[in-house]
Amino acid sequence: MPSYTAPTKDYQFLLHDLLKVSEQDIPGFEDLDRDFTGAVLEEAGKVASEVLAPLNVVGDTEGCTLENGVVRTPSGFKDAFQAMKDGGWTAIDCDPEYGGQGLPYVMHTAAQEPFVSANMAFNMYQGLTHGAYSAIFHHGTDAQKQTYLPKMVTCEWTGTMNLTEPHCGTDLGLMRTKAEPQDDGTYRVTGQKIFISAGEHDMADNIIHLVLAKIPGGPEGIKGVSLFIVPKFLVNEDGSLGDRNGVSVGKIEEKMGIHGNATCVMNYDGAVGYLLGEEHKGMRAMFTMMNEARLGVALQGYAQAEAAYQNALAYAKDRLQGRDVTGVKNPDGPADPLIVHPDIRRSLMDQKSFVEGARALTFWGAMLIDRAHKNKDAEADGLISLLTPVLKGFQTDKGFEMAVQAQQVYGGHGYIEEWGMSQFARDARIAMIYEGANGIQALDLVGRKLAQDGGKHVMAFFEMVKNECKAHADDPRMAGFVEPLKAASKQLQQAGMFFMQNGVKNPNEALSGSYDFMHMMGHVCLGLMWTRMAKAAHDALDAGAEDVTFYETKIATGRYYMARQLPACAMHLAKIESGAETVMALSADQF
Amino acid sequence: MPSYTAPTKDYQFLLHDLLKVSEQDIPGFEDLDRDFTGAVLEEAGKVASEVLAPLNVVGDTEGCTLENGVVRTPSGFKDAFQAMKDGGWTAIDCDPEYGGQGLPYVMHTAAQEPFVSANMAFNMYQGLTHGAYSAIFHHGTDAQKQTYLPKMVTCEWTGTMNLTEPHCGTDLGLMRTKAEPQDDGTYRVTGQKIFISAGEHDMADNIIHLVLAKIPGGPEGIKGVSLFIVPKFLVNEDGSLGDRNGVSVGKIEEKMGIHGNATCVMNYDGAVGYLLGEEHKGMRAMFTMMNEARLGVALQGYAQAEAAYQNALAYAKDRLQGRDVTGVKNPDGPADPLIVHPDIRRSLMDQKSFVEGARALTFWGAMLIDRAHKNKDAEADGLISLLTPVLKGFQTDKGFEMAVQAQQVYGGHGYIEEWGMSQFARDARIAMIYEGANGIQALDLVGRKLAQDGGKHVMAFFEMVKNECKAHADDPRMAGFVEPLKAASKQLQQAGMFFMQNGVKNPNEALSGSYDFMHMMGHVCLGLMWTRMAKAAHDALDAGAEDVTFYETKIATGRYYMARQLPACAMHLAKIESGAETVMALSADQF
Repeated sequence: MPSYTAPTKDYQFLLHDLLKVSEQDIPGFEDLDRDFTGAVLEEAGKVASEVLAPLNVVGDTEGCTLENGVVRTPSGFKDAFQAMKDGGWTAIDCDPEYGGQGLPYVMHTAAQEPFVSANMAFNMYQGLTHGAYSAIFHHGTDAQKQTYLPKMVTCEWTGTMNLTEPHCGTDLGLMRTKAEPQDDGTYRVTGQKIFISAGEHDMADNIIHLVLAKIPGGPEGIKGVSLFIVPKFLVNEDGSLGDRNGVSVGKIEEKMGIHGNATCVMNYDGAVGYLLGEEHKGMRAMFTMMNEARLGVALQGYAQAEAAYQNALAYAKDRLQGRDVTGVKNPDGPADPLIVHPDIRRSLMDQKSFVEGARALTFWGAMLIDRAHKNKDAEADGLISLLTPVLKGFQTDKGFEMAVQAQQVYGGHGYIEEWGMSQFARDARIAMIYEGANGIQALDLVGRKLAQDGGKHVMAFFEMVKNECKAHADDPRMAGFVEPLKAASKQLQQAGMFFMQNGVKNPNEALSGSYDFMHMMGHVCLGLMWTRMAKAAHDALDAGAEDVTFYETKIATGRYYMARQLPACAMHLAKIESGAETVMALSADQF
Repeated sequence: MPSYTAPTKDYQFLLHDLLKVSEQDIPGFEDLDRDFTGAVLEEAGKVASEVLAPLNVVGDTEGCTLENGVVRTPSGFKDAFQAMKDGGWTAIDCDPEYGGQGLPYVMHTAAQEPFVSANMAFNMYQGLTHGAYSAIFHHGTDAQKQTYLPKMVTCEWTGTMNLTEPHCGTDLGLMRTKAEPQDDGTYRVTGQKIFISAGEHDMADNIIHLVLAKIPGGPEGIKGVSLFIVPKFLVNEDGSLGDRNGVSVGKIEEKMGIHGNATCVMNYDGAVGYLLGEEHKGMRAMFTMMNEARLGVALQGYAQAEAAYQNALAYAKDRLQGRDVTGVKNPDGPADPLIVHPDIRRSLMDQKSFVEGARALTFWGAMLIDRAHKNKDAEADGLISLLTPVLKGFQTDKGFEMAVQAQQVYGGHGYIEEWGMSQFARDARIAMIYEGANGIQALDLVGRKLAQDGGKHVMAFFEMVKNECKAHADDPRMAGFVEPLKAASKQLQQAGMFFMQNGVKNPNEALSGSYDFMHMMGHVCLGLMWTRMAKAAHDALDAGAEDVTFYETKIATGRYYMARQLPACAMHLAKIESGAETVMALSADQF
């Protein structure tokens, strides 16, 4: 069975050496000293390895079952969920007014990582609840907040997001679920929703469904969509649970992975719903959940790769196979460990340098969200809005790719379920699809985010990269970072220029290159992170840090990324500059 | 449920327009006219879509079961296997002396593709038998051939390959299974073998295991390994089945995919074995099977991508979601089909251009094998020996990647098992691992094949590419092919030069880039194939071919590959030239 240990030392490096959280002018950050964050994250890591990780394979093997309308989660999930509630892990960044701990989002993010690495399917139950909490928190009336939030903060009640219908996922304007207004101000919701994660289960007293539906007579398409709170059990005025609402689970899907999470078909049959936010402004409210959800999915991408990498590394050190061509390394054994072989190294370094880079980008992204919200900083808001599709698309693609590479280290043992490596790949696969398939992320990035506010945010991003390069121009130790980053950033700008020059005449010239652009920008972001991390590591060493090996390893890992990953940017640029012609040459019939 | 139709028109294009099989000076090729190959391949395609494809999901869902030592294959497999035997599909290229049809290997390869696309797990039962047939055919005594081959040609008896043991896969020198010589000239084989595909099942009267084992007292390591025939049932002198041999199935593995094939732990407990070939020369005999097996696995890589692509394409034409940004294409519908969107096009073109290129490379490779064997052509033998790791490693990596892309076209519907897209990805995944994990293919290529016969074969390959470019230098219609191919080939040579200049001093300088080199060479091979295919298509059009659309589509698809895939070569070169330093920088403890 695979094992998992939270890389808490790396969390601390990011929070304190890289992001210097306690020195930020963001309300609440002043309390984030090393001792405090260390204590929280050590404890989160402990829960992850001791409680959640042992249930990962159990969840995959048993899956969820539906019988007579009742969904049962895998053995042990209920107790583990109780442990999460008892430990307050569901409430880290929630508002203290509703029982939360009021910590910054960056701390929530850091504490989530070990849970996601240890057991992604399990963690989705609280992850979705957190998203629903946010939507109600930002768009609910006071009464709605008082009714639902205290119970959702503790996960006594969990939440769901209901968007997809059988005939529409990406194009929600085609939605058929309808919400008919009643005289008492409530609505009756009728329709079918599919792919509803945690749609029904046995770990909470109530489930608060957030459902997109159309109010008859409203505008056509996406502009006529509203958001509704549809609880599984109606809630009485005194907060106690009332009648069962007209919502039921139709079936649970058989999936490639995340078997521990119940993916449900939900049938709404005149269910009582309460409007959340304004009529016909449902998409706006839903996006409150979705941007946060996308960052969460970006985290899933690298967090699964982290878990897979840890096991691949252990196997590479343990498994004896072949001899080092430059000289025997394990003369007393029948063969050398796999890790002596250069191609195994390449694979492990790919994994390690991606995961650590993506973690830095995600933590930084979370801090930008804190800054945007708590300081009302429009620039931070614009920047994270620009970066969200990159984080989601790039990190989940690469996270899956790295989980597959980790599986590959095991050879045949990676393909059989016994070692658990297949599960990491199968679970990681979903992150490329849900919360907006990665092609949609690329479309959002190139079709929308680049031009947002007159292109201000992408220009600010380029300026930031340029300044980073300039800052270390005279530091010879940083040359292995500055030069590749400068080149990659230039290539990214050149791609943006190509879109501007050609996309206006023919949008396909831009959209044919959107996926490549997303990946290119992902590499530039990780290149920026590695440059900053290398500088932070050098600073720590200069200041006489004790753990010299940790910082030296960090720098060496970064050098690998710059040398061996950033060259992808030139390839993506060449593809982009080849234009739309070959992409669009065939008529549909010619395929 | 996914569907499958054999692309027989493309098979015919490759055999006749590209390879011009009936004009070759290879014995037996003169009979391969269009009518004959068309009739055979149409029929193979029919069996594949009507008999095998409907059982693909069944095999995945039911899997194989082991009860009291008996393995049961999924419902319908037995009848389908009988249909394959009855149709003579197991015997295409086998020697007529033993009941085969004696057709060229290239015809066997072409006929295999639809079977593999339709049901990979099922087709492995005959695929492994074919490999075992080859080993006995090339290394067996006359008596052994007479005893086993006629029954194996018909698949009344199936075959297996037994290499891996729990503690060794790649490094077979560590093998523990032993074969003790008996006074009657037989051996007693004792040990445990794992990952034995089709190791036990209910579709054949006997199973002929080919088992690697060590004869006590022989040389240490890989040089002391011999190959044995170990039948499940001993065969009496009259050919009838005798006693059950001391071999039994210990368990069947739970795997990520290919559930329809029984992957067995096989226990040999003093089983009677017959030496195949010479003592201690087992690896040589096994390699007869393995090179052929590797080409077969290379075919699996793109054949799964073909099946996945066909379904992704159908879905992209059918599923209505969003509108074409350049203008509505389906005004009477609520939305346009997915295929209007540039990023969906990019994905479909990636898939299509890879599959068709890989098919060409595989068919060409099969013809080289025919030439090597039937004409005793050492140059053809050297070339296919060089290309085998490229075909296996590149095509299975890309095949999996394309199956994943095809799955992605379905969005959430790709992740649930209902649509069958997950199975294509899960099944395709194994091809990157078995018959030598792809890292081993890269090692074989760079560590062994490049320098084989003084580098003669790789030089010949470069010369061939150069001549191809030269031949079309004055044809403006070919510019979109010649220029990218020339550039990519030059980059590949530059990478080879880097290895030569640096790898002698430090082998890690070459081996750190082996995986990139394998992919680079894969792209150059497909670039070469596309150049030749484009020329063949132009020739056909010039000659007034009727199906203009087919040939124009072929050229357009090739132009996509050259513009959008060959740029990967420059990236691989940059990675290779960054050297071993960053790859090997960390000590094992630093990870």
